[in-house]
Amino acid sequence: MSSYASVDSATRQTQGDGITAEDIQDAGAVASEEVATYAMSLGDDALMLAQRLGWWISRAPEMEEDIALGNIALDLVGHARFLYSYAGTAWNKTEDDLAYFRDEEEFLSARLSETENGDFGQTIARQLLLSHYFLGLYTELQDSTDETLRAIAAKAVKEVEYHADHANQWILRLGLGTEESHRRITEGLYYMWPYVAELFEDLPLHQKLAETGQAVLPSSLKADFDRNIAYVLEEAGLDIPQVPSARSGQRTGQFSEHRGYLLAEMQVLARRHPGATW
Amino acid sequence: MSSYASVDSATRQTQGDGITAEDIQDAGAVASEEVATYAMSLGDDALMLAQRLGWWISRAPEMEEDIALGNIALDLVGHARFLYSYAGTAWNKTEDDLAYFRDEEEFLSARLSETENGDFGQTIARQLLLSHYFLGLYTELQDSTDETLRAIAAKAVKEVEYHADHANQWILRLGLGTEESHRRITEGLYYMWPYVAELFEDLPLHQKLAETGQAVLPSSLKADFDRNIAYVLEEAGLDIPQVPSARSGQRTGQFSEHRGYLLAEMQVLARRHPGATW
Repeated sequence: MSSYASVDSATRQTQGDGITAEDIQDAGAVASEEVATYAMSLGDDALMLAQRLGWWISRAPEMEEDIALGNIALDLVGHARFLYSYAGTAWNKTEDDLAYFRDEEEFLSARLSETENGDFGQTIARQLLLSHYFLGLYTELQDSTDETLRAIAAKAVKEVEYHADHANQWILRLGLGTEESHRRITEGLYYMWPYVAELFEDLPLHQKLAETGQAVLPSSLKADFDRNIAYVLEEAGLDIPQVPSARSGQRTGQFSEHRGYLLAEMQVLARRHPGATW
Repeated sequence: MSSYASVDSATRQTQGDGITAEDIQDAGAVASEEVATYAMSLGDDALMLAQRLGWWISRAPEMEEDIALGNIALDLVGHARFLYSYAGTAWNKTEDDLAYFRDEEEFLSARLSETENGDFGQTIARQLLLSHYFLGLYTELQDSTDETLRAIAAKAVKEVEYHADHANQWILRLGLGTEESHRRITEGLYYMWPYVAELFEDLPLHQKLAETGQAVLPSSLKADFDRNIAYVLEEAGLDIPQVPSARSGQRTGQFSEHRGYLLAEMQVLARRHPGATW
């Protein structure tokens, strides 16, 4: 039989170039409490979206798309691992502590990342909006004064660029496809649009960390985002939804009931067997 | 904004070395009806297991393991795509036709590949058994007289070798871990064991195709499989389950009720929107 390779052998994610979650733990950089909270909030967005997308494996309308959405989900779990590993240095916690042993009120994810999959149009609408948001965010975060955030952003930006391209392709295909596909992606965009504004809200934490150049001020990403989304929608023959923003506050305690259900699924196993030696 | 890359951009699966599902369609080789049925049955095992494993994304006991099981699931969807693409040449059908538009009585998957995830121990027990079965199968299939099956096997064998290593590692870790982990992996193995025998049953189709060297006779894989599993279990301090085999016939019409539920989840979207232009 073949030799026992590392448990990592099936995780292509951590191979090749770029940092790994282990690198971050080993590098010895310790995040301040504020930087840790910021990193954790970015990780929460990635993890919530990953869990939503993972559902599509073997359920997408095409087998090729099963694999695409599955790979995107795994990229996002990878980003969450980096961000949680770094955040954990502030509190002497592991990535698994932060993913599996926080309660719903301790998560800082934006509502959009937790939104229901709905039909494929709704999922692709969410992909368009979040992947362009991530692309803008990680592009800018590559210039952070925090060395670890810079390294994480440099790794993530290459992947979210693929995710944004993937979403663009689908928006074009659905927007310019059949009457039915056009109607459904339009509905998906209307469903997701109210949750966009929250992504670009500056919280006190952002303002403080932006002053020192550690974090990106969310509001500073809005103009590019709007321009990019408007460009893709126009190419696809789709209108920008005219719909008011939902009440925000998801990152500050006013979270939706979806978060609890998502976490229940995500955390049940780790919590039943803390320590995960089994 | 970035240029529109191919929709494939997020599917690392089809990049790099080895064949792709498109290569198979383009190569122009047409499978005989019998070879197609054989290829389809191998694809069915891969796809059923992939759907079971995909459930674990963001639900495993460790984030690293989310990614490992997710990657294994995507590898298996990839194998199913190759096998369905080739099978489809016999009937002028696409991979998506075979995945999404067959009814449960038309699937030829073995019961073990459809078995419930249960707890993590049960999932890992299934991984041990199926990945070693796949490893033996694809190793031998590399010598098939059918050129396309040979190419598919050469691609798949590298991946299932990782899957087997991954399962071996977990068997050791759980078997030699805590009392609780030892108990649970033992239970998982007992749960899965009755479905092993079916994997190695020779059906008339296998016998016919083995005569011409196109297929691998399942029974010929049994001795190596038994030896490899016994070796891993012994290393892990685990006993070989003493438990009778379940009634077989899963591949010949006596399938379990699980298949229907799995297919319902898998096929609902594609069937609701046939043609998948939307």
